[in-house]
Amino acid sequence: MSLVNAAPSPEHPETCTGATTADAAAPTAQRGEIAVALPMRHAGVRTTALRYELQGPAGAPVVFLAGGISAHRHASASAAFAEAGWANALVAAGRALDPARHRILAFDYVGADGKLDAPIDTSDQADAIALLLDALEIDRLRAFVGYSYGAMVGLQFAARHPSRLQRLVAVSGAHKPHPYASAWRALQRRAVALGQLQCADAQGLALARQFAMLSYRTPEEFGERFDSVPEIVNGRVRCAAEDYLDAAGAQYVARTPVTAYLRLSESIDLHRIDPAAVAVPVNVVAVEGDRLVPLADSVALVEALHGRGQLRVLRSPYGHDAFLKETDRIDLILAAVLGDTGAQP
Amino acid sequence: MSLVNAAPSPEHPETCTGATTADAAAPTAQRGEIAVALPMRHAGVRTTALRYELQGPAGAPVVFLAGGISAHRHASASAAFAEAGWANALVAAGRALDPARHRILAFDYVGADGKLDAPIDTSDQADAIALLLDALEIDRLRAFVGYSYGAMVGLQFAARHPSRLQRLVAVSGAHKPHPYASAWRALQRRAVALGQLQCADAQGLALARQFAMLSYRTPEEFGERFDSVPEIVNGRVRCAAEDYLDAAGAQYVARTPVTAYLRLSESIDLHRIDPAAVAVPVNVVAVEGDRLVPLADSVALVEALHGRGQLRVLRSPYGHDAFLKETDRIDLILAAVLGDTGAQP
Repeated sequence: MSLVNAAPSPEHPETCTGATTADAAAPTAQRGEIAVALPMRHAGVRTTALRYELQGPAGAPVVFLAGGISAHRHASASAAFAEAGWANALVAAGRALDPARHRILAFDYVGADGKLDAPIDTSDQADAIALLLDALEIDRLRAFVGYSYGAMVGLQFAARHPSRLQRLVAVSGAHKPHPYASAWRALQRRAVALGQLQCADAQGLALARQFAMLSYRTPEEFGERFDSVPEIVNGRVRCAAEDYLDAAGAQYVARTPVTAYLRLSESIDLHRIDPAAVAVPVNVVAVEGDRLVPLADSVALVEALHGRGQLRVLRSPYGHDAFLKETDRIDLILAAVLGDTGAQP
Repeated sequence: MSLVNAAPSPEHPETCTGATTADAAAPTAQRGEIAVALPMRHAGVRTTALRYELQGPAGAPVVFLAGGISAHRHASASAAFAEAGWANALVAAGRALDPARHRILAFDYVGADGKLDAPIDTSDQADAIALLLDALEIDRLRAFVGYSYGAMVGLQFAARHPSRLQRLVAVSGAHKPHPYASAWRALQRRAVALGQLQCADAQGLALARQFAMLSYRTPEEFGERFDSVPEIVNGRVRCAAEDYLDAAGAQYVARTPVTAYLRLSESIDLHRIDPAAVAVPVNVVAVEGDRLVPLADSVALVEALHGRGQLRVLRSPYGHDAFLKETDRIDLILAAVLGDTGAQP
């Protein structure tokens, strides 16, 4: 792999941090985009853009944060980019991922712009991150914190680029997808294909997302929230959860290119790593009740990591989405596992 | 409700049983169809056909058997109707439901022919069964054995027609659907609707069925059967379970009218009974790991039945489908709970 354009070219140069010390009062953030030629596992060499956001004081240790396939480079709000990020409750003052004490780096996944219509492997994402670190002149991450797809990418990164990170925290993601979860995703992709038959792409994608929501959450949560008698509307039964599911579908469709969804969904199913190839310490965080990543798979991962793996188990009615919903408890876990890395390089 | 045509009019008169004693060597079976005017809860009075099959010697105690929404009147093979039935392994010589010692009665659910395009309540099914018993001059069932939707219908039957049965066995079905399972079914119906938009009805129904299969089975089973790396076929990822899911969808589409699927799926979600209204003994059989009917719902049902309810719990990798797959273990349970009813009236 090689950089087509190794020099970061921030889209918002006015927001580049002027702070040079870790104790700057207001954390700053910068965004940029680099073009790389990425040798992909299943798709040959492709030129693609890597869009990143880096928040926090220059010189502070860098934590790479990677979320689910819907996550992106904007992890949390800052003075420069004030809108809420996808991990806003975890990357905040006083948290383990305090952007006053760390630099938090995140990127848009390869394929997230919908322009790469080819099979994307988690190893491709890991190699892209290594290229990004080269471009940003970051030798080594203090930690890679990955959730869901991000945990899979983190495992690939740890296996392929062990010198580039001190520690991996892999939340709700394992060395391979569970076959039941893969089947669930395969059917979601079929919903998209059914919609595409007649140019009802948005409807197919909304339905896929709605089915995905069921896999991200739990019966316990639905039992609490939607336990009312269905209505009959225009002669059809309409269940209590359907308003919620409608909203979830519409919100997703508005921000997600169909091709991005399909290729990143596939990428989860392509994921496979040999835990024996991971040479750095890994904290595996599993959620009991996760319907996509069964606890048994996280246990198997930790066992296969031998002494390098440690397991933390959380019980949550939010299942696979616990990382995004149980932010106080996740922060406690992150504080415990990142604590020994210290705040300064 | 009233009978439009109370006299059974067997479609296959040549197969009507000639045996008049319970010890006839070969159990016989008859089929028939009656037309009834059924006052429906949400749809007014509708004239509909009730198609039944009754297997076993005249005079033997009658057990009504009701399965999932895909079940039908042909429960098991007989000399008269040799093809395998949907409960072939449970209704057989030597089993608790031995057709030499019982008469096994089953019917096609109201709406199963796809001709009734209206909301169908489980109480409608229960009332239809009472009309069928009238027509067949069966005063009282030795037992009603219901599985899945059939358990819901059985609970309605027990609540509305308590004098017509001695005991109910309700397997994998409760007093109300779980909101998470309802959401899952609502999305399946949306898959059908998406197909219908473009006259791809079969494709939509196949996808709905495939999603349903995931709810009927468990991750444990899929983990055993489909744990291989996905292939890339024509540039798309194809997961290990997809052949199986393709077959399941095609098989279902070949035998199921779209309207029947939609209306019976809705009917599950409309189901509600007050367990306090059930005045007969009920054996509730629950499967730990059932993703549609959580064990907690079966426990809640038994508690609300007070002294009239007894719970048996089965652990099975087949989840909701255990009734159809764990037939030896289900038979043992049926033998235990039906044993005290004796073989003769």
